[in-house]
Amino acid sequence: MPTYSAHPTAAILIIGNEILSGRTQDTNIKFIAERLDKAGIKLLEVRVIPDDEEAIVESVNTLRANYTYVFTTGGIGTTHDDITAACIAKAFGVQLVENDEMLEILKGCHQERFNENRRRMALIPKGAVLLRNKLTVATGFNIDNVYCLAGMPTVMEASFVLLLPGLKTGVPFVSNTVTCNLREGDIAHALTKIQQAHSSVEIGSYPFYRTPPDIGVSFVMHGADPYAVNAATDAVVAMVQQFNGTFTIVRF
Amino acid sequence: MPTYSAHPTAAILIIGNEILSGRTQDTNIKFIAERLDKAGIKLLEVRVIPDDEEAIVESVNTLRANYTYVFTTGGIGTTHDDITAACIAKAFGVQLVENDEMLEILKGCHQERFNENRRRMALIPKGAVLLRNKLTVATGFNIDNVYCLAGMPTVMEASFVLLLPGLKTGVPFVSNTVTCNLREGDIAHALTKIQQAHSSVEIGSYPFYRTPPDIGVSFVMHGADPYAVNAATDAVVAMVQQFNGTFTIVRF
Repeated sequence: MPTYSAHPTAAILIIGNEILSGRTQDTNIKFIAERLDKAGIKLLEVRVIPDDEEAIVESVNTLRANYTYVFTTGGIGTTHDDITAACIAKAFGVQLVENDEMLEILKGCHQERFNENRRRMALIPKGAVLLRNKLTVATGFNIDNVYCLAGMPTVMEASFVLLLPGLKTGVPFVSNTVTCNLREGDIAHALTKIQQAHSSVEIGSYPFYRTPPDIGVSFVMHGADPYAVNAATDAVVAMVQQFNGTFTIVRF
Repeated sequence: MPTYSAHPTAAILIIGNEILSGRTQDTNIKFIAERLDKAGIKLLEVRVIPDDEEAIVESVNTLRANYTYVFTTGGIGTTHDDITAACIAKAFGVQLVENDEMLEILKGCHQERFNENRRRMALIPKGAVLLRNKLTVATGFNIDNVYCLAGMPTVMEASFVLLLPGLKTGVPFVSNTVTCNLREGDIAHALTKIQQAHSSVEIGSYPFYRTPPDIGVSFVMHGADPYAVNAATDAVVAMVQQFNGTFTIVRF
């Protein structure tokens, strides 16, 4: 059986007062997480922090030291609360410099509306390279293992799908889901034994209580070895049948 | 003008492989964040980490030292992947003990279905107290400044609304939103001047590009002094009018 210990790892850093105040429902985490999982890059941590220099610098430096890749979202723009580029420069100990290529793009795009506010978008950390997308002209930059993306989901998504193929990926993760009408408390011991016998597969148990009384649990078998994931799934199905449960199954 | 520097602070720790794999769209952050904001408790950090002992212990100990309150979600249950209680006990350096009150509740609730799996739900860190809700019998516990809640949104929410009134709260935060058809790049400098003149108010600028071409920006004025928030809002409205923009406004 192949081993999959060599997966690249990742963290996401959401820079956004609007998430911390509860104003905005974040969707960037799920979008990035799903795609990293399929690319075999193990997402191990997400942090959400305020638009605050100290918090950004400290988090970026911690995360970039701990993971293969760091993706930040938010704080890319022309207004006073857009401080990501300056903070990343500080975190890397490099200057914030005007990028000639970006300056030309901005002038070409905005024409007579080009001004000092928009010129600010050309400032990126020295040594960083621009990230592109098919939606907007200016959407972020990459320096070393840190990728800084817009906070706006459509723009972030358009950039992310273009940068992903350039990353070092791993064996893709896959998962199967078995949803049944049993209770966790009845099968927990049997499930533990299955987890022990299938240690290369992460087995998650997610109970639900829905109305009208629709109570049950979903088991998610997740891993990088599709044969092992299927074997664990078969064992879970057998367990559900043994407990006289009914089930549905969604395989990768 | 009153000062509001004495707000309690908070962090959320989402314990969940299902968020990191992209399987599940988290909604717990927004639910908790909104209510903390209205209660005048400043949410300053969110972390999402795997169902992993080392990650949980380290994060809990960092966050509980840095913030007034820590709310964890996930890992409360009867299956092998429910390790929050054991990890919190380890983080606090206390034993995991069987809570008599919880044991009675579980026996009473499950009757002839009570078993060793369900008995596991009665294990909480020594010194912790049970959290209750109106939906389920067993939903988490509180030890010192750490509140451990279920991951399932309905259960988490039912517990959170009952624990919130027991917290030390601050002057509530309020916010106004002005949405207009201008571009950030045109008003950035004027907005910076408004932010400087209204330093007790956090002014966020959130551009949007929607289809059909519906381009603009929302300004969010957020703070604990309602008069200051309104004054900053009035200044932003005046700015939008000065730039010949049209706008809508939502006040707290």
